[in-house]
Amino acid sequence: MTSALQPVTVLGLGNMGFALATALLDRGHPVTVWNRSPHKAVPLTDRGASLAATPADAIAASPLVIPCVVDYDTLYALLDGATGSLPGRAVVNLTSGSPEQAHQALAWFRSHGADYLDGAIMTTPPGVGSSEVMFLYSGPREVFDAHRTTLAALGDPLYLDADPGLASLYDAALLGLMWATMTGWLHGTALVGAEKVAATTFTPVAIRWLSTVNSFLTRYAGQVDTGRYPGDDATVDVQIAAIDHLIHATAARGLDTALPTLLKSTMERAKAAGHGSDSFASVIKVLAETESK
Amino acid sequence: MTSALQPVTVLGLGNMGFALATALLDRGHPVTVWNRSPHKAVPLTDRGASLAATPADAIAASPLVIPCVVDYDTLYALLDGATGSLPGRAVVNLTSGSPEQAHQALAWFRSHGADYLDGAIMTTPPGVGSSEVMFLYSGPREVFDAHRTTLAALGDPLYLDADPGLASLYDAALLGLMWATMTGWLHGTALVGAEKVAATTFTPVAIRWLSTVNSFLTRYAGQVDTGRYPGDDATVDVQIAAIDHLIHATAARGLDTALPTLLKSTMERAKAAGHGSDSFASVIKVLAETESK
Ligand SMILES: NC(=O)c1ccc[n+]([C@@H]2O[C@H](COP(=O)([O-])OP(=O)(O)OC[C@H]3O[C@@H](n4cnc5c(N)ncnc54)[C@H](OP(=O)(O)O)[C@@H]3O)[C@@H](O)[C@H]2O)c1
Ligand SMILES: NC(=O)c1ccc[n+]([C@@H]2O[C@H](COP(=O)([O-])OP(=O)(O)OC[C@H]3O[C@@H](n4cnc5c(N)ncnc54)[C@H](OP(=O)(O)O)[C@@H]3O)[C@@H](O)[C@H]2O)c1
Repeated sequence: MTSALQPVTVLGLGNMGFALATALLDRGHPVTVWNRSPHKAVPLTDRGASLAATPADAIAASPLVIPCVVDYDTLYALLDGATGSLPGRAVVNLTSGSPEQAHQALAWFRSHGADYLDGAIMTTPPGVGSSEVMFLYSGPREVFDAHRTTLAALGDPLYLDADPGLASLYDAALLGLMWATMTGWLHGTALVGAEKVAATTFTPVAIRWLSTVNSFLTRYAGQVDTGRYPGDDATVDVQIAAIDHLIHATAARGLDTALPTLLKSTMERAKAAGHGSDSFASVIKVLAETESK
Repeated sequence: MTSALQPVTVLGLGNMGFALATALLDRGHPVTVWNRSPHKAVPLTDRGASLAATPADAIAASPLVIPCVVDYDTLYALLDGATGSLPGRAVVNLTSGSPEQAHQALAWFRSHGADYLDGAIMTTPPGVGSSEVMFLYSGPREVFDAHRTTLAALGDPLYLDADPGLASLYDAALLGLMWATMTGWLHGTALVGAEKVAATTFTPVAIRWLSTVNSFLTRYAGQVDTGRYPGDDATVDVQIAAIDHLIHATAARGLDTALPTLLKSTMERAKAAGHGSDSFASVIKVLAETESK
């Protein structure tokens, strides 16, 4: 029976909040929503969701409250007249922000009598609801444990740490990896595209190659942790020689060389620091000068 | 019977040539090798390989010849006294180079009576011999077809195009993707490492995240080919807002901000070109100014 499932409130029905509310309805949860622009709720109320008139009413409606608005300033602003509803609520905040903002939010919600967990959504809205996508959480373990089953409606819930800032920090780190990967992929796509290879032809090869690259990441992760970077597979010197082919091929086709030029200079800084015959993992030494290992 | 398998010659026994010869021996091929430093052949001759005294003898020994030396200049230099052995041979060149060098090599080997195929090895030596890794080939289709079964001993052989330069161009494009991805991963590893998260803890999450990123690449490849970039999942404007969290978190921990700063400025160029409300795929327009779609 759906009546056995926990009622949930979603605050914010932008692209992401709408997807979260939809996934909860799909699982049969009683869902209450609030959004500054109430018309966005219509497809949800058509499916049985309740539209609250105010944030205070929305929070009062469910023991679990999931805010997902554009940023923390917006979140605090909309909670301005609603703090009276917070005592006894668990707030699982999926609004993107910094680790510092997560720390402050934990303190703020606790001061208003609410439990707090910080989360990061590792997908775009079309992926919400799939158990293949990750939702990262950090903060009090007991809040996560109490709501894990409900949160599984949104995606696979991964608990990171009691430090509430860690979900945001992972989020930044993983998005950085995504932007680097997507920009590198677009660069490669432009390069082969100059020879009339379609993006849809190149991309399956690129994706298969990334599974090989994953095996390098796994090997190099162990090297980073031990601080030893044996260059017995491929050295920084070999990579520097090879990246010249890329820069030359890019320039010869009139394409933007900024990304490969930066990647080369990063490798050259590793070489200058004495890592020419080490593996690529040694490049972390120039990215993390504060690292002491 | 191994006597049914094609004899193969490998020229060059660096890290990679040694791995190639090993994979061929593993499959039972009669293998002849030559290397400037002959001592590197000992583990191979112990397993039944023949060590030729000169490149000419090595080429004469097998119908299929696989050179894998440091660069093209080295390859031409070692062939200097060996051209008399080339007529009737098929040369599958796995030495890394540029598309232009592949074109020149095809003409050069043809002028000496040999067939030619250009290849690119999409793994490090430990991966050679696995059917999961890709070896890319371009040049005459019939040369590929004649030797496909033998080449499958090295890795999964993928034929790209009759244009001999395409394997090198894909190689450059895929290596560029690798360096971008590996640098982005090291950056993220350094960021969470500043909060005492081990690389071996972060990396499985990063690898799982990359499988989500792969779904973005697949979606965006279709957008690149059609030249339309609907921003209905996540817009360039949203990414620009989010990357500020990464730059701030990076700077706050005293880490190198060069990569995220470049990625942000690339996105801002896309925004300035009118793509703020388009998807990330629109960033290709600033990487490929020559693109007309
Ligand atoms: N989209 C993604 O792929 C994605 C992925 C991971 C995380 N996120 C995060 O999810 C959060 C929401 O993103 P989104 O994609 O849903 O953004 P969006 O489509 O732009 O929606 C923004 C939401 O914030 C509300 N809002 C903005 N200004 C407001 C104000 N002054 N007062 C009250 N409400 C206000 C909007 O209300 P109106 O509808 O009234 O404008 C809407 O509900 C962000 O923190 C984002 O970083 C998004
Ligand atoms: N390692 C990888 O992960 C990888 C991946 C893909 C492609 N590749 C490509 O494979 C090729 C070989 O790479 P590798 O890793 O095997 O490099 P390596 O370990 O440095 O070996 C270089 C090879 O070139 C030979 N050589 C160098 N200078 C020479 C000269 N003047 N005359 C004759 N021979 C000379 C060396 O002979 P000696 O043994 O006598 O020095 C050795 O056989 C390169 O084009 C590389 O880009 C490598």
